[in-house]
Amino acid sequence: MSLRGAGAEPRCRCIATENRRIGKLIARVELFAPSPHCKDTEIIATLKDSGKEICLDPSAPWVKKVIANILSR
Amino acid sequence: MSLRGAGAEPRCRCIATENRRIGKLIARVELFAPSPHCKDTEIIATLKDSGKEICLDPSAPWVKKVIANILSR
Repeated sequence: MSLRGAGAEPRCRCIATENRRIGKLIARVELFAPSPHCKDTEIIATLKDSGKEICLDPSAPWVKKVIANILSR
Repeated sequence: MSLRGAGAEPRCRCIATENRRIGKLIARVELFAPSPHCKDTEIIATLKDSGKEICLDPSAPWVKKVIANILSR
């Protein structure tokens, strides 16, 4: 698991990020801006089939590309 | 309201999109890729203070800029 349990906790949500390029499996991407509770930008993807939530690395080029692809569709 | 009620309904979530440039008010952005239930890319922003959810236009340049800004922080 790369994601902490509850979503509303006042701290960062992601513990680790996914390295594999799973862009095609993604149904939804959530971007969390830095806040007083977490200084990092966090990205959580929800997979199409399983609905599983996975943390992505905001600085990874393939992640930026996945987001650009969703925006351009 | 620019957003339908429940999130899990098998149809598009957004009815209308926000025209004002509310980038600085946004805490979180959700990107929904097109799916069998909705052919559109949908973007839902959650506001910092109120937690209110607002639909954004994926093709609006200011919306793309807000997302790029979150990614670059």
